[in-house]
Amino acid sequence: MRQDQHRFTIHTHGKALYEFTDEVADWLERTGIESGMLTLFCRHTSASLLINENAASAVQRDLLRWLDKAVPEGNHYEHDSEGPDDMPAHIRTMLTGASLNVPVGGGRMLLGTWQGLYLAEHRSASHSREIIAHIIGE
Amino acid sequence: MRQDQHRFTIHTHGKALYEFTDEVADWLERTGIESGMLTLFCRHTSASLLINENAASAVQRDLLRWLDKAVPEGNHYEHDSEGPDDMPAHIRTMLTGASLNVPVGGGRMLLGTWQGLYLAEHRSASHSREIIAHIIGE
Amino acid sequence: MRQDQHRFTIHTHGKALYEFTDEVADWLERTGIESGMLTLFCRHTSASLLINENAASAVQRDLLRWLDKAVPEGNHYEHDSEGPDDMPAHIRTMLTGASLNVPVGGGRMLLGTWQGLYLAEHRSASHSREIIAHIIGE
Repeated sequence: MRQDQHRFTIHTHGKALYEFTDEVADWLERTGIESGMLTLFCRHTSASLLINENAASAVQRDLLRWLDKAVPEGNHYEHDSEGPDDMPAHIRTMLTGASLNVPVGGGRMLLGTWQGLYLAEHRSASHSREIIAHIIGE
Repeated sequence: MRQDQHRFTIHTHGKALYEFTDEVADWLERTGIESGMLTLFCRHTSASLLINENAASAVQRDLLRWLDKAVPEGNHYEHDSEGPDDMPAHIRTMLTGASLNVPVGGGRMLLGTWQGLYLAEHRSASHSREIIAHIIGE
Repeated sequence: MRQDQHRFTIHTHGKALYEFTDEVADWLERTGIESGMLTLFCRHTSASLLINENAASAVQRDLLRWLDKAVPEGNHYEHDSEGPDDMPAHIRTMLTGASLNVPVGGGRMLLGTWQGLYLAEHRSASHSREIIAHIIGE
């Protein structure tokens, strides 16, 4: 058993889902680990990680629309030091989570046919987001 | 340290929570691993995994009722190629997540007294759902 | 590669977020593991774990207010054997989750600048909550 770790940076420009499945697959191949458990971790409290369908882009827009409606922007939050999208970003991060687990076999992530890895950016302004990938296996 | 991996298939027949705690416990025992970290991963974007109370079945019905109300079915989604339960299934999967972590000690999952492992099926039609179990330990 | 496991107990007194980042950091240092993957697991179905901003306490209050509004207490649940905060606690646990993953490097959790580890207590009465920390690394 051995492990490897890597930091990815994703540059975001507004609220959207940013797919990074291919970047992780490329790094995983370079580690040479054939079987194991991969974990992805987002080092922020206003952006999060999720796995969802990567075939139809309408799915991604509907996911964001639901979050927009369920956690509306506005001036009704106690914490609003960075504007109306500040606190909703923290709540949306709570709901979707900071980490993902993906099992690895045959040198590849064992994702289902329609599953892709996404960074969910919940702030309107541009940001650099750090994601740590960690694999334990052999 | 060593690892083991197994694929479970759960046949679902409509929106419900399907407990699979015993199946995982049986497999874990066969691995012979006494202490470690177990991860479960659902290979779908319209079904998800969660841990919740397994004593009162009313809890499971109330969990599903909340999801039904918070993420209503209907024709107001942009993505509706597979019917009114299609997009809500993706949103409910986003909210509940694709993976679970359960620590192992003394050869058993260290679940709390009331905790059970559930596959949450979010589609109305019957499906075969694949779950990957992965254990790292010794 | 090796592993270590520890049980933390957190005494709660009502619905709130209880930070336990420092307790985990102290234990992690004692394990002597420099690099690896840390997993935290909550052994309850009416309390959960989350990572969120630990600078402004208003963030924590707004997170709880959102949960209070999105999952209201009341007598409209089928499962209400322990009072109006019983079933909402299970639903809030489903939404926020039972486990966290935190990568470790240089002997420390690789949390972002503003990230803290929280136990979210969803019941009004006082409770003792058990959290299991598990680290695999070297």
